[in-house]
Amino acid sequence: MQEIYLDNAATTRCGEEAAALALALMTTHYGNPSSLHRKGLEAQLELDRARSRLADALDCAPGEISFTSGGTESNNLAIQGAARARQRRGKGIVAMANTHSSVLEPLKYLETQGFLVRLVNPRPDGNADADALLNAVDADTVLVCLQMVDSETGAIAPVADIARALGRRGLSPHFHCDCVQALGKLPVAAPKLGVDSISVSAHKLGAPKGCGALYLKKGARILPLVYGGGQEKGLRPGTENTPLACAFGLAAELAVKALGENHVNVSSLREYFVKKCMKNPDLCMNSPPDATPYICNLSAPGYRSETLLHFLAERGVYVSSGSACSKGAASHVLKAMGLPPIRVDSALRVSFCPRNTPGDIDAFFEILAQAMKTLRAVR
Amino acid sequence: MQEIYLDNAATTRCGEEAAALALALMTTHYGNPSSLHRKGLEAQLELDRARSRLADALDCAPGEISFTSGGTESNNLAIQGAARARQRRGKGIVAMANTHSSVLEPLKYLETQGFLVRLVNPRPDGNADADALLNAVDADTVLVCLQMVDSETGAIAPVADIARALGRRGLSPHFHCDCVQALGKLPVAAPKLGVDSISVSAHKLGAPKGCGALYLKKGARILPLVYGGGQEKGLRPGTENTPLACAFGLAAELAVKALGENHVNVSSLREYFVKKCMKNPDLCMNSPPDATPYICNLSAPGYRSETLLHFLAERGVYVSSGSACSKGAASHVLKAMGLPPIRVDSALRVSFCPRNTPGDIDAFFEILAQAMKTLRAVR
Repeated sequence: MQEIYLDNAATTRCGEEAAALALALMTTHYGNPSSLHRKGLEAQLELDRARSRLADALDCAPGEISFTSGGTESNNLAIQGAARARQRRGKGIVAMANTHSSVLEPLKYLETQGFLVRLVNPRPDGNADADALLNAVDADTVLVCLQMVDSETGAIAPVADIARALGRRGLSPHFHCDCVQALGKLPVAAPKLGVDSISVSAHKLGAPKGCGALYLKKGARILPLVYGGGQEKGLRPGTENTPLACAFGLAAELAVKALGENHVNVSSLREYFVKKCMKNPDLCMNSPPDATPYICNLSAPGYRSETLLHFLAERGVYVSSGSACSKGAASHVLKAMGLPPIRVDSALRVSFCPRNTPGDIDAFFEILAQAMKTLRAVR
Repeated sequence: MQEIYLDNAATTRCGEEAAALALALMTTHYGNPSSLHRKGLEAQLELDRARSRLADALDCAPGEISFTSGGTESNNLAIQGAARARQRRGKGIVAMANTHSSVLEPLKYLETQGFLVRLVNPRPDGNADADALLNAVDADTVLVCLQMVDSETGAIAPVADIARALGRRGLSPHFHCDCVQALGKLPVAAPKLGVDSISVSAHKLGAPKGCGALYLKKGARILPLVYGGGQEKGLRPGTENTPLACAFGLAAELAVKALGENHVNVSSLREYFVKKCMKNPDLCMNSPPDATPYICNLSAPGYRSETLLHFLAERGVYVSSGSACSKGAASHVLKAMGLPPIRVDSALRVSFCPRNTPGDIDAFFEILAQAMKTLRAVR
């Protein structure tokens, strides 16, 4: 059976070069970077190179990069770490309501620790409501969390504008930005964004699952989550994951190098997708028009997401109903946008990688049309 | 130049089969286990298999295994998680003073949170002082931490005896055991050990760096360190590190299968090593006679560990001065044993894998003798 993989925002295939490098770090340069002999040094040099590559991808200094086990850990490290480091200064936290569970759940935990979390809904089109966000921030706010690209709708937040506006108002909370869905797809230049920390994940841009990183602006202070041997300057101890960190560095470099070309290609995929969607009056797009081209969220009102998803999957077309981490639960993102339940319950997320083709999109819409003919609409 | 790798307790080369499986999970079964389509299910099944393999290696149920990013995270998760879950019952924590930094450092952190940590020194031969440990535990003790195998001397702690003795005294703190240096080398049967949690690491037994696991006995309760999408039953959220978790499962299975045969071979390596060490009156063994055969700690009093280590490394023989994570700092383990500074400062840790040969040991002692002839002893 054909396999048409249109779930690249959940995870995407690891590139051959990144996988080969991971393999070399497992079986050839297998030393522990903390070991003082040549086998350790060899691994340390490879790790340094990975850190430099990732720093180049984020336009920051290598010393501002710490490797973690993934986006969830990076978000938790920044959020819990910044809140704990600043808890004597204030208790307020402001975040967008449409952020990923790896942001929302640590915030819920912090609420149990006495922090006051204000969640700001996006506008009905899915875009961030910058004014509402800024108005929620006050002198008691110690942390602001934003995501650059919404993992479900692909909406792009005006991160740099918000950072500047905070500065103009004389507010200086720790400003954390989740760039998991952005790196390698949009320019993510840390200094230009003006944030204090950025989380990124390897497996969204062609490196393996199991690795992530945190950019922490020089001078910004957060507390670690785990304690141990002092690796990653004590911010994230534990023997370094050299295979996946090195694969991540390489994949980030390759993705950023191909960013422009990929953007053009994926933008025409998206254009084609939106046109096909518009032609069917029983479908509607949930992603804003100016979203990243990599993520298209649409609804087939009256049909259940999960039923559609399975119908498609049985025919070899793989999409999702929202973030993979939500495992099919109704989308909190679409709810926060204020979409009616009939649209929330029928949403599908289609997410591209540069290997996808217009033929993949044809197959998707063809099988979706079959599904809508075969299945009974519930209205 | 020859390369003689005798630093396998720091990290050991990933086996070909485990590396090949990791590669397959990166490039073929690359789905996100949380995705509801076939590509996700495929990854989920591989992950289930890895969990079952690891559960078999620890003689426990798959549901008692959570994958983490490594031994440091596993230790932190158990230690911080158990202390936080029980903080209303008491504030006492008892641990062996010779445990790894990934145990001692979270304990130091917990001290800043109001816990009272008592560290119990090992006996002068390096073995655990079970009576002293038991006497330190009282009704206020919520957590006891032990390591099965000392990462520097290889001393084996009588974990099951201590668990039984705690039970006889009517004490039921959370009992955590660090088995990072034990799994795949000694039988580690969770039910027989009678502990509440066990941490293990992939890269010590022929799987890649960047993965570990926590055994948590059914019914035992700890709080998570990170919050997010609910993976690993919410104990350790984040997209699963399928490549390394699967490699870990396979490597653990292979190591446990070969445990008996490897133990015989490595025991004769150790016997050979000890004999050669005894022949040189300027050397002394720091490991107790009944230690694991995989780790031999010796001293060349009057010579600095680091100088010896570099002399050996320049000639292609790789050992360490202690735990790799301590990066050459004077050993807290040997200090806790009460060894005099001249022995602590001249310690070397030689650690085997089943691929090592008597020839490797000959080369080590030959170059060590050269070093002691060439370098000036400081007494």
